[in-house]
Amino acid sequence: MLGREENIQHLFSNPNFTFIPRDLSLPAEVHELFQTYAFDVVFHFAANSDIKASADNPSRDLKNTFLTSINIMECMREFQVKEIIFASSSAIFGNKPGVKISEDSGNLWPVSYYGGAKLASEAFIASYCYMNNIRSWIFRFPNVVGTRLTHGVVYDFITKLRKNPTYLEILGNGQQSKPYLYIDDLIDAIFHIWSDHQEMINCFNIGVESQTTVTSIANIVCEEMGLQNVQYLYSGGKGGWKGDVPEFQYDLTKIHDTNWQSRYTSDEALRLSIRRILNS
Amino acid sequence: MLGREENIQHLFSNPNFTFIPRDLSLPAEVHELFQTYAFDVVFHFAANSDIKASADNPSRDLKNTFLTSINIMECMREFQVKEIIFASSSAIFGNKPGVKISEDSGNLWPVSYYGGAKLASEAFIASYCYMNNIRSWIFRFPNVVGTRLTHGVVYDFITKLRKNPTYLEILGNGQQSKPYLYIDDLIDAIFHIWSDHQEMINCFNIGVESQTTVTSIANIVCEEMGLQNVQYLYSGGKGGWKGDVPEFQYDLTKIHDTNWQSRYTSDEALRLSIRRILNS
Repeated sequence: MLGREENIQHLFSNPNFTFIPRDLSLPAEVHELFQTYAFDVVFHFAANSDIKASADNPSRDLKNTFLTSINIMECMREFQVKEIIFASSSAIFGNKPGVKISEDSGNLWPVSYYGGAKLASEAFIASYCYMNNIRSWIFRFPNVVGTRLTHGVVYDFITKLRKNPTYLEILGNGQQSKPYLYIDDLIDAIFHIWSDHQEMINCFNIGVESQTTVTSIANIVCEEMGLQNVQYLYSGGKGGWKGDVPEFQYDLTKIHDTNWQSRYTSDEALRLSIRRILNS
Repeated sequence: MLGREENIQHLFSNPNFTFIPRDLSLPAEVHELFQTYAFDVVFHFAANSDIKASADNPSRDLKNTFLTSINIMECMREFQVKEIIFASSSAIFGNKPGVKISEDSGNLWPVSYYGGAKLASEAFIASYCYMNNIRSWIFRFPNVVGTRLTHGVVYDFITKLRKNPTYLEILGNGQQSKPYLYIDDLIDAIFHIWSDHQEMINCFNIGVESQTTVTSIANIVCEEMGLQNVQYLYSGGKGGWKGDVPEFQYDLTKIHDTNWQSRYTSDEALRLSIRRILNS
């Protein structure tokens, strides 16, 4: 489990908030939840979030990323819940170097079990929604950063440099380049689209036009930590690990046409996260 | 179970053929198979084939169409089997009226649990293949007809008319229009592509350019049965049932460019099947 209860501690005093920890990969636990509460809408964000960790253990994504979706849809069918918001991912597209990926891009060949499980979830969600008149909002997240990271490149660099500030091991050649979105921008986009768009399937790529290379992230971390002359040791190769997508770029026309733009660029999102993590 | 052992009876005397009935939706049964036999290649065609039947029971497709794929891929990973041929389906595309669907068409929103389970299978197969250097051939079948049908429109019409040759109940408005491929053409296409194409992922739509409406199928069945003045009773509506795709059309450029064409048109495929079923 990567989630941390301390991350939601500040919500416990809110009378509109109830925390009910359950293992959504177990049908009986999900069923009991739906039996107890009459939900109007389900925000299904539960998943394995550590793509790298599932490389040697696909059952991690089968269970936590895919079966959670099936269990939820099966209960939405039974209890006739009519709205689902689903956190999908750019990982469903696989490796598409040099292509601006739009919502209707085809040739979906995910290269990680995580991407496979997210696409498989979309597939079943679509059929459950059609068969049971459920409305869906499917958001394909990019890389997201914020202060409550539990893994990933930013978390990894800060942890390593705190241990040893003289050198930094970097997975891949450092040229992997992706758009990083700040968490507040992501949440803003979700509520913006959810409240204004009412097709039966509302599918949107959420992202930011700019991108940041892994070496640039290392530079920002070093700057913010006040470190100089840190030696970078690259493990080499295009991707950070097998199943990593070394670069991708969204075509964001569809979401921009709804009058939404991210507030922070990719570099700004990273610097803000890093600064806030270091100050927390 | 829709399969019938009598359909493969003629193969039992072939020394190169071994029939080992197993429930591939159960991990332990698949595992034991892979442990006993050293497979060079897996033709994974196991699935629920009755889309209509799963409408009230999605677990039918989750189990027989999706989990069979997962169990097979998990064993291919463990036992390092390096080639898979997978029977996918036009159902992964959902409703795309008026669009010629090519292999790289996007916006994959299946409208049946069967289509969801086939797309979900493709998704996991892609990630398993990438992560474990397995070569895949993914064939998206259209409607297929032949002599050994166990359900579907042709089977249904013949069965009904044998019971009562004066009238015929037809699901939908009869205008549903799809391409029907003769089984021999399908098998021919699979071996043609498998032997000549060696990308890591070889994805092909298999089909025939022509199409046949449901009313035309009824006409052919009546002609071949020598029936006249049969009264057609339409249940009405565009699709035959919820989750039915009333029309679709493939763009077959990719497979035609490999020098493959179906031998029979859609009408010919249907007439040949019907004639052979009636004579058997």
